[in-house]
Amino acid sequence: MPKTPAVRDYIRTIVDFPHEGIMFRDVTTLFADARGFRMAIDQMLHPYAGMEIDKVVGLEARGFILGGAIAHQLSVGFVPIRKKGKLPARTISQDYKLEYGEAIVEIHEDAIAPGERVLLVDDLLATGGTAAAGLKLIERLGGEIVSCAFIIDLPDLGGRKLLEGMGMDVHALCAFEGA
Amino acid sequence: MPKTPAVRDYIRTIVDFPHEGIMFRDVTTLFADARGFRMAIDQMLHPYAGMEIDKVVGLEARGFILGGAIAHQLSVGFVPIRKKGKLPARTISQDYKLEYGEAIVEIHEDAIAPGERVLLVDDLLATGGTAAAGLKLIERLGGEIVSCAFIIDLPDLGGRKLLEGMGMDVHALCAFEGA
Repeated sequence: MPKTPAVRDYIRTIVDFPHEGIMFRDVTTLFADARGFRMAIDQMLHPYAGMEIDKVVGLEARGFILGGAIAHQLSVGFVPIRKKGKLPARTISQDYKLEYGEAIVEIHEDAIAPGERVLLVDDLLATGGTAAAGLKLIERLGGEIVSCAFIIDLPDLGGRKLLEGMGMDVHALCAFEGA
Repeated sequence: MPKTPAVRDYIRTIVDFPHEGIMFRDVTTLFADARGFRMAIDQMLHPYAGMEIDKVVGLEARGFILGGAIAHQLSVGFVPIRKKGKLPARTISQDYKLEYGEAIVEIHEDAIAPGERVLLVDDLLATGGTAAAGLKLIERLGGEIVSCAFIIDLPDLGGRKLLEGMGMDVHALCAFEGA
């Protein structure tokens, strides 16, 4: 190979998953590659070098893979945001709109202390609905959101605009045009 | 605090979750603590110092948090084993028995190459049903299983015996007696 592959080169595109017309950006091929995974985690952290981060929050389920790695590299705690009914202790919840219907995400009410500086991570920024709901949960617990880090941005779906409109700092390693 | 807490001291026990009679061992309090999470990941890796590991496989969903961190620390690839229907590309699947009924887990058929040395990780070893199904998937792809690493072992539920009976090396950071 004449050139070192970039993170986006490890991402596989699957046509018509989970339903017709969707170009699914599959990060499992990135994660399964030793160099790809190393590069992705390291590069996701570059914007935050020297910044104070107290906790990493990951969105279920692929955000857990990234969030675990990033929290460990930073030597800080990891907090999951999960779909309704999965967390065992007392939670607060937030609903948000899907293409068809609604979904609910939850966080443990004692997972973040007021004033803690939080980095939110997930693999993909599409419409931003799940991320926005997650950010609201963090804010309701008094967390201070440092930034939101993604591997992939799908700018045509509007998620970046939504999060930036909430006053958030947003970073992604690569973007794919179109849906 | 007169003594540095051990990993098990960060684990919260929730009575009657998800149903009556279950003492749920909640690792989210361990993961959310900077020192607890750091200690857990580091200690899970101690048995494997100097050993060759090519890939880390994590079981959905809490195994993703641990597996992401461990794969990143080792600079190797991470592979998810997921519940049926979640993985976008071609998979192989394995069913296993639950207390009531059955469940199915899947892995991408190209996620592990024959001869690759694999470490399986999850948070909890209970009956071992999910772990055993995951190990079968790895073996069906030709992977060589180095070991299985857990945070918690519930020895009275028989998972360790089941996995050791399959010829597996099993490590856990702590054990809780009873169910």
